[in-house]
Amino acid sequence: MIKQYLLAPGPTPVPNEVDRAMATTMIHHRTPQFSKIFSEARERLKHLFATQNDVLILASSGTGAMEAAVSNLFSPGEKVLVVNGGKFGERWVKISQAYGLEAIQLKVEWGKAVRVDVVEKHLKVYPEIRGVLIQASETSTTVLHPVREIAELTRNGPLLLVDGITAVGVLPVLMEEWGIDVLVTGSQKALMLPPGLGFIALNDRAWQRTETAKLPRFYFDLRLERKNQQKNSTAFTPAVSLIFGLHAALEMLETEGLERVYARHDRLARATRAAATALGLKLLAPENPSPAATGIVLPDGIDGENLLDVLRDQMGVTFAEGQDDLKGRIIRIAHVGYMGAFDVLVAVGALEMALKKFNHPVKLGQGVAAAQEILMEAIL
Amino acid sequence: MIKQYLLAPGPTPVPNEVDRAMATTMIHHRTPQFSKIFSEARERLKHLFATQNDVLILASSGTGAMEAAVSNLFSPGEKVLVVNGGKFGERWVKISQAYGLEAIQLKVEWGKAVRVDVVEKHLKVYPEIRGVLIQASETSTTVLHPVREIAELTRNGPLLLVDGITAVGVLPVLMEEWGIDVLVTGSQKALMLPPGLGFIALNDRAWQRTETAKLPRFYFDLRLERKNQQKNSTAFTPAVSLIFGLHAALEMLETEGLERVYARHDRLARATRAAATALGLKLLAPENPSPAATGIVLPDGIDGENLLDVLRDQMGVTFAEGQDDLKGRIIRIAHVGYMGAFDVLVAVGALEMALKKFNHPVKLGQGVAAAQEILMEAIL
Repeated sequence: MIKQYLLAPGPTPVPNEVDRAMATTMIHHRTPQFSKIFSEARERLKHLFATQNDVLILASSGTGAMEAAVSNLFSPGEKVLVVNGGKFGERWVKISQAYGLEAIQLKVEWGKAVRVDVVEKHLKVYPEIRGVLIQASETSTTVLHPVREIAELTRNGPLLLVDGITAVGVLPVLMEEWGIDVLVTGSQKALMLPPGLGFIALNDRAWQRTETAKLPRFYFDLRLERKNQQKNSTAFTPAVSLIFGLHAALEMLETEGLERVYARHDRLARATRAAATALGLKLLAPENPSPAATGIVLPDGIDGENLLDVLRDQMGVTFAEGQDDLKGRIIRIAHVGYMGAFDVLVAVGALEMALKKFNHPVKLGQGVAAAQEILMEAIL
Repeated sequence: MIKQYLLAPGPTPVPNEVDRAMATTMIHHRTPQFSKIFSEARERLKHLFATQNDVLILASSGTGAMEAAVSNLFSPGEKVLVVNGGKFGERWVKISQAYGLEAIQLKVEWGKAVRVDVVEKHLKVYPEIRGVLIQASETSTTVLHPVREIAELTRNGPLLLVDGITAVGVLPVLMEEWGIDVLVTGSQKALMLPPGLGFIALNDRAWQRTETAKLPRFYFDLRLERKNQQKNSTAFTPAVSLIFGLHAALEMLETEGLERVYARHDRLARATRAAATALGLKLLAPENPSPAATGIVLPDGIDGENLLDVLRDQMGVTFAEGQDDLKGRIIRIAHVGYMGAFDVLVAVGALEMALKKFNHPVKLGQGVAAAQEILMEAIL
């Protein structure tokens, strides 16, 4: 019997309240009963996205919503600037290329945030750029990009498309105030749901662009979707039980209060970083760390894949591994979603024990103590 | 949002596997479908009780099964010896008295185990004693009583009635081998179920006594119940969903293996005791501690009720308090049931933080480290 602790940045743990809501007896989606739930969820999503515009709910993963952003806003051959500092920056590149856009890649060293002045320079060199595609939080490298500052640069220029998949609900991403044109997220992160829903909001400027954009789209035709969702229905069959869960999850977030939700994520992330530092471990993103997850560089000689296997199979603790060049060299501990102080203690306690098992000289309890110091903020 | 950790000795956490089994669509109890589940659960219970005799399943709490033990085995005015070293010893006294038995109380200081020689002396002084009533694990004081040794004394004398409510499934209680005449447990402890089922097994000697016992009983008439349960039915309506859950829980215990289940409880309890000691705290039962729960004496000047309120309401961690004279002076941390290594880390980490909040000089991480040292046994 090994109790399971899911501490990877998506899927994240699903609270009982959400599980129960999803277990509601199936209803038909073309009914006033469904429309009421859908309408209430839509209103709460606007608050989460900090926008007055529609937040469309799609039956897709977050990648579907990213694709919808591209296919609804551009025309064949157009140039976009893609900030590529990790697996999800790379995904923007692949989507753009699949649709025949010319993706100008602004490559960023994994673990670093993009520099605002470098973005600015690119926009000057390529005035024909029609869109800037970026992650608010690059999950693969646990980095926050300076979206707010970049939005200042694009306000009267190219559209700014932000992948907020591990940012929305984790930290403030103020769509309207900052001037983000398109903001995307998915269900299995801060929204505490299973995977299966994508979310996308466009501001007025972006909606105008959908009228002239010539890329092909059908399932993800956002104009059609908006028309239906404004009547609290959907263009195609919605993922009914996930919508029930969404309704419950948004209610939980509202009850906690978004400011407290953001403060919680920040506190858990700071506690984890303090623990890693106390254990003499290096952070993957020491300068611009995301509160969604903490990347920790493993000591030389420790095989990260073996370490993660022991943690998962012998201890029941699932962290995320590194990707591509970082495979086996880092671990990522998530804070996003239904996470509390004791998830950090479990994560750090387990990491200490696993490192010790791998003969790394670690003082048990040292990282835990550093985390506890910070976690105590919440009870003082 | 405060995640909840239920670390009190009953009700204990219910695993998802059991929750799902209990959520099975309700079926009628007079059907082959129910009988099959019931029959399989009955077989597995025999293994758990280490007996060839029937283990009867009652729709009641554990106290109902204790009452059944008394009302089925004695006649008005008979003398019983009750080992009373805590709230549950006291409960045997109250049940015996409610049924008009003469309860000779062998009072034991709270936190201590009864001495075998003292039991022996009582049995000599009162040769007319018809039964000895005892707890295997006295939950209120986190003490183990020497049931095996006492069974040696009663083998050819009075019946030995053992309340195994926080013992069966926690440590070996070998009914047949040790010579226990009646063994009782409840669902909400090691069986990882919600409250609502009581269990009772009688050996042949005890079954014979039911024929002459004259105390009144109806709902808990074990002869009638045995007659029905041997046909995989019940005398009265069974708690159907709990039986589904029982079936799943017994399957989990069987998959883990009872030896490993016992070793796990022992390890979690030793880790918790080591943590308390490392933090300079005194154990309530240093000499004969139960692996079901660990009683920790709070430092002078710390109000246990306030401490438990902060732990539960601000940190989401529910321990049990002390009862009667121990109220406010101790806490009890449970290990019984669906518990793993990280429940200990959560418990100890939370206790450290709460003590620090109450200005007790505690070095954060010190108890956690002591626990980790022991918990590592499971991954080496």
